[in-house]
Amino acid sequence: MASASDDDPRIGDISEGRVLRAILARTAPASHTVLGPGDDAAVIAAPSASVVATADTLVEGPDFRLAWSSGYDLGWKSAAVNLSDIAAMGAVPTALLVSLAVPSDTRLSFVEAMADGFRECCAELAPGCSVVGGDLTVSELLVIAVTALGDLDGRTVVTRAGARPGDVVALAGELGVAAAGLGLLFARFRDGTTPVGVDRSALDAAQQRALDRQLRPVPPLALGPAAAGAGATAMMDVSDGLALDASRLADASDVTIDLSGVALDALAFGGDRGRALGGGEDHGLLATFPAGALPDGFARIGTVIARSGDSLLVDGEPVTRAGWDPYRDWDHSR
Amino acid sequence: MASASDDDPRIGDISEGRVLRAILARTAPASHTVLGPGDDAAVIAAPSASVVATADTLVEGPDFRLAWSSGYDLGWKSAAVNLSDIAAMGAVPTALLVSLAVPSDTRLSFVEAMADGFRECCAELAPGCSVVGGDLTVSELLVIAVTALGDLDGRTVVTRAGARPGDVVALAGELGVAAAGLGLLFARFRDGTTPVGVDRSALDAAQQRALDRQLRPVPPLALGPAAAGAGATAMMDVSDGLALDASRLADASDVTIDLSGVALDALAFGGDRGRALGGGEDHGLLATFPAGALPDGFARIGTVIARSGDSLLVDGEPVTRAGWDPYRDWDHSR
Repeated sequence: MASASDDDPRIGDISEGRVLRAILARTAPASHTVLGPGDDAAVIAAPSASVVATADTLVEGPDFRLAWSSGYDLGWKSAAVNLSDIAAMGAVPTALLVSLAVPSDTRLSFVEAMADGFRECCAELAPGCSVVGGDLTVSELLVIAVTALGDLDGRTVVTRAGARPGDVVALAGELGVAAAGLGLLFARFRDGTTPVGVDRSALDAAQQRALDRQLRPVPPLALGPAAAGAGATAMMDVSDGLALDASRLADASDVTIDLSGVALDALAFGGDRGRALGGGEDHGLLATFPAGALPDGFARIGTVIARSGDSLLVDGEPVTRAGWDPYRDWDHSR
Repeated sequence: MASASDDDPRIGDISEGRVLRAILARTAPASHTVLGPGDDAAVIAAPSASVVATADTLVEGPDFRLAWSSGYDLGWKSAAVNLSDIAAMGAVPTALLVSLAVPSDTRLSFVEAMADGFRECCAELAPGCSVVGGDLTVSELLVIAVTALGDLDGRTVVTRAGARPGDVVALAGELGVAAAGLGLLFARFRDGTTPVGVDRSALDAAQQRALDRQLRPVPPLALGPAAAGAGATAMMDVSDGLALDASRLADASDVTIDLSGVALDALAFGGDRGRALGGGEDHGLLATFPAGALPDGFARIGTVIARSGDSLLVDGEPVTRAGWDPYRDWDHSR
């Protein structure tokens, strides 16, 4: 009894093995892969004799909505946000492990599109890195748990804790563009409280770019190792908003960071300084450098000063920490 | 307004930071940890200049039920099943990354007990390995996604693909004990279709041990590197039942495996050969060795012969593949 859906079966109607084969056919081993998927575990090159590792999960509801994100978008974004954390240590991404918990009525084509998103994000942003393993299970909602691995290529790891008074504070990337995209989704693509599909035709070019950056972030991964090579004293991925993340870096380093309002305005999407400070998910790199050492791709946005009562200042004035926290801010709609 | 629950708040009522601090206070860095939790990523020693990596997820429903598993059980089991995949490559576990998606009404004490389970499983089964990072998010059901890393200590990785005719087939561990425990849970601790809490007082000693092995497996992790050192030609973790997993090893190696019925009966919990072949989650190590090279801890259970039409024989007769597959066999009850 053939039917139209035979070409695109539901995950719950086919074997785990068939789903995994379909995924693996779309993820090719890259140069760091010593032993790829298919055994109990994979083996990945770690030429520096250490491995940098991070894990970040996207959950349907707080982290994404299926009305707004395609399978491809979700694969891309799940890869990008993890790769960014590797770059923020000064490391080069070498491998991803992907654990999918998928509702049984999910179409195979959706999972295949996710695999395409993972593959193409790695190929474009982190050549040499690929999906080397993972896990598939059924679940009542879609959960994408990713672990990313990286290698320091002989460099010293750059933590959040090394900033010193006198260092330059610099940023690679934009500020507030992903939050602008999220704002568009909430304002323009809901029918009351329910998300509806995205019709891009009514958006101007800047709005479309904001939407793209929200759904498929493009972190400046190559600049992480470059910053480490240039002597960055501290670095982190800006995922929860610059104000919150810069405060974290300042706290970890026991210093105060004084940002320049003029510099913020220059990098703020749409010139919105509040969104530039509070908007999450931009995945730029915030780093501190000895004066005079700023590498290409980083813009100076402030100065490290001796610790005072406040973690973060803008033009010498305290600013409130604020940021996007899906754990706190989720509206409980999918 | 203090209340009794202030001592044990719901996850959804407190900050992510407070939950993470509570978890991290219970997971101490071990000898392989270069940089522990708290930054964008962790750094783990990889002295062999490669890293072995695997990911496995436990989802509420298909993989566990909260009526049967405590937080401690779930932390222990999530660690053990991943550590076993590292050992099965001949590697020593070095680190775990744990991504938790937790319902907002989960009590903090439950998550703390999970952290205790992770810590104690590592300390008992894989000293030198610890939780180095992870992620916490809210979800409508509990999902525990774990990545385990390991180091080969200079040894060559042992895959499933190297078994040769004439090799001895050997097993470290028991057969069917975890399935016996699962059978007890389904038979004795349900009120109709709904799982009820486990009252161990009505169980005899063997039943209690089966229950323990189902809820807190104890894979023989040290025997993985020992087997690699003794020249194992192929190895894998037996997680889906011996018949299915031995068939997979035979297929990967393009050989046939002929098991000994007498040997199976000797290792079968309760003498049940069917359960020994089909029961999942024992997490023993199945390995093949050149004749005469069997290391301590492994029992001979069969012989590798040239590939015939069947992957697996018992006493020369074909056996049907069968095994526990939560993806297929879940009854959709939590």
